[in-house]
Amino acid sequence: MTEYLAPLEKLIEQFRKLPGVGRKSAVRMAFSILDLSDEAAEGFTSAILDAKRQICNCEICHNLSVDSICPICADSTRNQSLICVVEDAKAIMAFEKVRGFRGVYHVLGGVISPINGVTPDKLAINDLVKRVEENNVEEVIIATNPTVEGETTATYISKLLKRSGTTVSRLAYGIPVGGDIEYADEVTLNRAIEGRRSFE
Amino acid sequence: MTEYLAPLEKLIEQFRKLPGVGRKSAVRMAFSILDLSDEAAEGFTSAILDAKRQICNCEICHNLSVDSICPICADSTRNQSLICVVEDAKAIMAFEKVRGFRGVYHVLGGVISPINGVTPDKLAINDLVKRVEENNVEEVIIATNPTVEGETTATYISKLLKRSGTTVSRLAYGIPVGGDIEYADEVTLNRAIEGRRSFE
Repeated sequence: MTEYLAPLEKLIEQFRKLPGVGRKSAVRMAFSILDLSDEAAEGFTSAILDAKRQICNCEICHNLSVDSICPICADSTRNQSLICVVEDAKAIMAFEKVRGFRGVYHVLGGVISPINGVTPDKLAINDLVKRVEENNVEEVIIATNPTVEGETTATYISKLLKRSGTTVSRLAYGIPVGGDIEYADEVTLNRAIEGRRSFE
Repeated sequence: MTEYLAPLEKLIEQFRKLPGVGRKSAVRMAFSILDLSDEAAEGFTSAILDAKRQICNCEICHNLSVDSICPICADSTRNQSLICVVEDAKAIMAFEKVRGFRGVYHVLGGVISPINGVTPDKLAINDLVKRVEENNVEEVIIATNPTVEGETTATYISKLLKRSGTTVSRLAYGIPVGGDIEYADEVTLNRAIEGRRSFE
């Protein structure tokens, strides 16, 4: 591996930490920074610091927000008694794109994964239980990813919420729209059969 | 297109300006910045500013350097009368990896491309001519890329250097080592025939 000048190497190392960036991309990015004007470089660094400084977590749902309460929780036209539980704030964006969901969210901040040191107390689970119990919540939709950890987390939360008497549901699994049954994996196909619905 | 929070959108836009980064990658990168600790985020920004501040161009060859004279120009064991002319500092790294070249370099800072507003006076060409005339330079190897602009620049420089009496050469063109003749494009194959060498 070629060694660049020390300040350049440091910058390359920083870029390598970004998701999906390998050594070659990091080198290209670092060189592009050197080509920037001083103002442009400062624009870049202040964008990083501003984002870190200005963005906090909503006090109610832990979504990313510039205010203490996020726009979704503050929106009185939304159904505050329907909570969709997601792993991270990125998932909220996916739901908001569809515009079909008019409830509110709750961001866990990850999934239970003891092997990675993520125990239930490290997630916003107790917070969710408290929120459900203190407010008149009718339904909680658990929308963790269909991974082993996501499933475990969903089961864990559903058990905790049982005593509150709230309806707890899970997103439907099945063949994705536009997908081909021929190429669906066995687990997905099995879930699609289990979750079949009668024509009404 | 989904709109994120304003400070996040600004950060995404900054990442999009990096080479090879599309919208989706930029979003992932921006979110990863939010997950950084405050110290890590400051480490990132100071790496950017340090690189910009500490790295300048070598006064002799315009290579990237932390000192006013780069380590290659300052190295007395290198042949100062053999200059390899390259488009940018990245090309120097490619030559240094081979370790076969013991001369010095001259970075043009681009190639002549009037359509992009790059006229010869915007490049370090006059500088090169002066350097060749003032020092006892024996040979100049022009190593611009084999593009139309690179070729034009090479021809332009070779004409300028003619009156100095220095030998001006060009990198050899031909089939890349490990390449397959069957798949070589016509221009490359033609150059390989033109540049053929007799067995010694």
